[in-house]
Amino acid sequence: MIKATPWLHPVLISLAVVALMFALFNFGNVKRRLIGRPLRTRELNQSHTKLVWGIALPILAADLYSSVAYGPEAGITELSKLGPSVKWMIIPITASTVLLLVILITSYIMGIIAYPTGGGAYAIAKDNFKGRWIALVAASALLIDYVLTVAVSVSSGIQTMASSYPVLVRHETSLSVLCVLIILFVNLRGVSESAKVFSAPTIFFMLSMLFVVGTGFVNEMHRGFVQQQTPPWGTVPQGLTLLLLLKAFSSACSSLTGIETISNAVPIFRESQAGAIKAYIALGIITGVTLLGFSYHLYVQGISVNPNNTMLSQLLLVYFGHGVIYQVIIWATLLVLILAANSTFTGFPQLSALVAGDGFLPRALVVRGDRLGYSNGMIVLAALSILLIEVFSAQTNALIPLYSIGVFLAFTIAQLGLTRRWMRVKGRGWKTKAIINSFGATVTAIVSIVVAVTKFTGGAWIVLVILPILVFLATRIRTHYNNVADALRMDIKHSPPLEHRVISVVLVSSVHEIVRQTVSFALSTTNDVVALYIGFDEESIKRMEEKWEQWGSPCRLITVKSEYRSLLTPLSRFIKKLENYEGGKPDHIQLLIGQFIPKRWWHQILHNQSSLLIRTWMLQHRDVVVTTLPFHLPK
Amino acid sequence: MIKATPWLHPVLISLAVVALMFALFNFGNVKRRLIGRPLRTRELNQSHTKLVWGIALPILAADLYSSVAYGPEAGITELSKLGPSVKWMIIPITASTVLLLVILITSYIMGIIAYPTGGGAYAIAKDNFKGRWIALVAASALLIDYVLTVAVSVSSGIQTMASSYPVLVRHETSLSVLCVLIILFVNLRGVSESAKVFSAPTIFFMLSMLFVVGTGFVNEMHRGFVQQQTPPWGTVPQGLTLLLLLKAFSSACSSLTGIETISNAVPIFRESQAGAIKAYIALGIITGVTLLGFSYHLYVQGISVNPNNTMLSQLLLVYFGHGVIYQVIIWATLLVLILAANSTFTGFPQLSALVAGDGFLPRALVVRGDRLGYSNGMIVLAALSILLIEVFSAQTNALIPLYSIGVFLAFTIAQLGLTRRWMRVKGRGWKTKAIINSFGATVTAIVSIVVAVTKFTGGAWIVLVILPILVFLATRIRTHYNNVADALRMDIKHSPPLEHRVISVVLVSSVHEIVRQTVSFALSTTNDVVALYIGFDEESIKRMEEKWEQWGSPCRLITVKSEYRSLLTPLSRFIKKLENYEGGKPDHIQLLIGQFIPKRWWHQILHNQSSLLIRTWMLQHRDVVVTTLPFHLPK
Repeated sequence: MIKATPWLHPVLISLAVVALMFALFNFGNVKRRLIGRPLRTRELNQSHTKLVWGIALPILAADLYSSVAYGPEAGITELSKLGPSVKWMIIPITASTVLLLVILITSYIMGIIAYPTGGGAYAIAKDNFKGRWIALVAASALLIDYVLTVAVSVSSGIQTMASSYPVLVRHETSLSVLCVLIILFVNLRGVSESAKVFSAPTIFFMLSMLFVVGTGFVNEMHRGFVQQQTPPWGTVPQGLTLLLLLKAFSSACSSLTGIETISNAVPIFRESQAGAIKAYIALGIITGVTLLGFSYHLYVQGISVNPNNTMLSQLLLVYFGHGVIYQVIIWATLLVLILAANSTFTGFPQLSALVAGDGFLPRALVVRGDRLGYSNGMIVLAALSILLIEVFSAQTNALIPLYSIGVFLAFTIAQLGLTRRWMRVKGRGWKTKAIINSFGATVTAIVSIVVAVTKFTGGAWIVLVILPILVFLATRIRTHYNNVADALRMDIKHSPPLEHRVISVVLVSSVHEIVRQTVSFALSTTNDVVALYIGFDEESIKRMEEKWEQWGSPCRLITVKSEYRSLLTPLSRFIKKLENYEGGKPDHIQLLIGQFIPKRWWHQILHNQSSLLIRTWMLQHRDVVVTTLPFHLPK
Repeated sequence: MIKATPWLHPVLISLAVVALMFALFNFGNVKRRLIGRPLRTRELNQSHTKLVWGIALPILAADLYSSVAYGPEAGITELSKLGPSVKWMIIPITASTVLLLVILITSYIMGIIAYPTGGGAYAIAKDNFKGRWIALVAASALLIDYVLTVAVSVSSGIQTMASSYPVLVRHETSLSVLCVLIILFVNLRGVSESAKVFSAPTIFFMLSMLFVVGTGFVNEMHRGFVQQQTPPWGTVPQGLTLLLLLKAFSSACSSLTGIETISNAVPIFRESQAGAIKAYIALGIITGVTLLGFSYHLYVQGISVNPNNTMLSQLLLVYFGHGVIYQVIIWATLLVLILAANSTFTGFPQLSALVAGDGFLPRALVVRGDRLGYSNGMIVLAALSILLIEVFSAQTNALIPLYSIGVFLAFTIAQLGLTRRWMRVKGRGWKTKAIINSFGATVTAIVSIVVAVTKFTGGAWIVLVILPILVFLATRIRTHYNNVADALRMDIKHSPPLEHRVISVVLVSSVHEIVRQTVSFALSTTNDVVALYIGFDEESIKRMEEKWEQWGSPCRLITVKSEYRSLLTPLSRFIKKLENYEGGKPDHIQLLIGQFIPKRWWHQILHNQSSLLIRTWMLQHRDVVVTTLPFHLPK
């Protein structure tokens, strides 16, 4: 159910967040307090901002591992209407997911071997395909998926909490937004700091799940591997179609999103390549064991699908009852779901910086913040996911089907790229590697198609619409940057600076100290100076002309009457006239504006902001050099 | 019940409204469409933007007249717990309100006679009291009251609609905000246009109420002036205390807010003075007749107070049953309640322009917009009332007690001022006039005290806290303007412009066309030119120095290494050094920034906005002349 949010709130809030972050990020002490002291560029490669693989693993794995709790359930749910005779199929479905997991991890390790400095699907595709669009498809798919991960993980975490604590129900959206902001701030502080905060709960959750799996085996050791409640094995239920089976498989595969995080983040490992490979192997083993053990115990205990009680919760009740252990594990699950969003705050900025570095995204994404993270990327990720959360009022069931298609598309592209690489570069054991990757490509391509087909109407079509748009925009951005570079390029040996003819226009509103300063400046720098007075009635114009004469007419005064009380229109008209000046068109028209700077910033609202207005207008519309002379009140 | 709105929404929305209005008001075609073509200043005094009194009356009267429907009820409600024997007292209470109305209107007509160009309590107090603070108290009290009027009228209108149409309940806040925005837009189009839209419903409501009163008399003519259900007359109920009686009276007086609107708006009458006096007399008669007739019929029909059904609604049911007439009148009541807010959009901007003209409020409030109304005042009124609506989620019961104290305070000050004036100026029949006004002053002073005492705990204290703060701020603003004027004043005969020494600093990021243009400009206008390059590492600095030499070093290049990847800090440090330059401190340091202007505005996000940043930073922090050279992409 989508809550009725007035349409302007989400947009407003996202804009405000971006504006706030931007302001915070460029000014002030608040930033220092929140983000910490700035780091020197050379600290980037010092070890204390890098992580040993044992710490990096839980941070990067939260996204993948948080889904083990619901992956098998998502798969078997698709079949549950066929009756209890289908229960045994949770094992083959989960096993096929684990098989896919093994294939993916092997392929990704190949990727890290090929590209030791890291880089996931985008870098691989860029290096191995001529058409840039293939790499862009991979990048766009992953970026979309990152945003979805944040929105879906955070809001589903908050939603589950709210169903335990009904008092939160009306505040789900605000809480989710708050949650994203907290994750953002911790990440803006820098990778190693966020690690300290975020790795512990994930490790705890991993241990909890392994403990549950272990408890299951102990239970089965004591009470038998086939218990009273264990359903029969191997009967093919009536009504089982291939499509249904594929649907179940593709739903179970949603637990595999997040694998690519490690391969994109190789540089944050203190041991780089080797650390990432170790992390992948460890992650594969833990995830595989958890998935298989968990689904096996679900089968042995004959757990059924129940929309109001997750299978994990049911299994915990069988083993531990409604006690402390149950509560602790359920809470850890929720926490990890929220932390899954955090791993994305490493992946998204890294990838977008990579793509932006190639000129396909705004360059601001390449700039490292004070704490050496790609802060702008983090802010964009937070803003987009907050927008999603607000638009869907943190009710994100509708977003889940959009979720896995992007990843599998990127997987396929990466595998294909690696295959091409092995065939080109060769090297030790290249044939095996090529076979591994081409097999991986085939499998993930099939999965992509299965997901796209079975989830098309459920929302996958949205991704298939947005993807080409993003790719198109990216190529347009690159073209723009190329055009600009062409326009700015010059022959350094034969383009000396030239003597330019400048006409200065001083805007005057009366004769007082600011005008005196501005006219002095103009006369000291340019030969052609004109003072311009825009009056709203004849009387004030006459008064100004008299004053100017009294002052001794230091330069020519031109007066213009503005019947509509507007400054901008008569000013524009005047500048247009100057462009066809007697002595030929000047190279530059300089507009000089004396600006009164009050002692306290809030005094600004007591003064007309015409200078700001004129500047904005001029920059937008004309080729005029705008000079602002500040005038401070004497103390 | 106050809805749980996340705290940031109200503030955000109000900020957004102000920003939007400001943007709309200064740029673009949207404005033309919404607001209409700009009007020439000389059109101000042309008759087509002024109103004949018959049209001005309903517009200015909506605030006062809309309250006749609930005034008598508000009074008798305070006594209703004393039992049915109190019912007859609705007549003396209402009669005393009408008496007060007559006194107030007579006094206000005296005010218009004394000040034919208009001006309510503020103008009168300013002219007759030496201490400016008295006038400021009157003005602040009225301004507060105007904002409250908008918030209370609009939200109570919407609230009543929502109780008829429950589907609206969850959207009360958004609807109220929308409502204020619509009123704002219509008013931004100009006075005469808004008249056409808003006078008809008020006239219709007036006619409806007179029709109800007339129907009552016809009914009584046929069925007797004392009917079966008529309660006994004249028994003093047990438990009636003076305080209770005063409370009833002060509650009934809440129907008198809005009287001052006409006297503040004399200039909008085509017949000026005479028109305003006619309007006052007509309004007094209509309101008095309605109040007396209405309360008399309530007594005859023995209507009781019922929190779920207004007395007006009950009386209508007695006369007309649940038919079309009932529906139409109820709807007209709601509509007029919302339109009451509209009259405030004439009063608030006029008053704030008056006060701002004296230097007690930001000067922007004096500027007439394109359509000759005080647009900034309207925008401020809309923003403040939207803030109130959002903070209280359009549940404004809490605001009603704050409501009438301001008005009666302003009344008292105005009467006192007029009394002093008659005693000073004298003139024909001045004694009678002075007696009328001093009597008026005494009465309204007593009412002020009664209201302040009986409603103190109910919220009147908030007004008594805010008032002195506003007055204090106003005097600070005036002091600021005086200081600025002093600082800017100069001896026009003996302060010619002087020759200034200017050092130009050109910020360079590489050697390309923009740099060439900027350096050319700098060399053509100033003698001392320095190019400044801020690099993030040794390597880029070395590359830049080489390029600069290749280019022929047209001026001195200074390179600075920024270890923290910040531009602003090294720039500030450099400028501080320049201020202690070899050749003595220059008069001006000019910072030249070449700014790339993309062809399409949204291309801006593809380029670093460092120039904007530097400009803002410099304006905020240093005495540096900032010059922006635009560089457009060649077509």
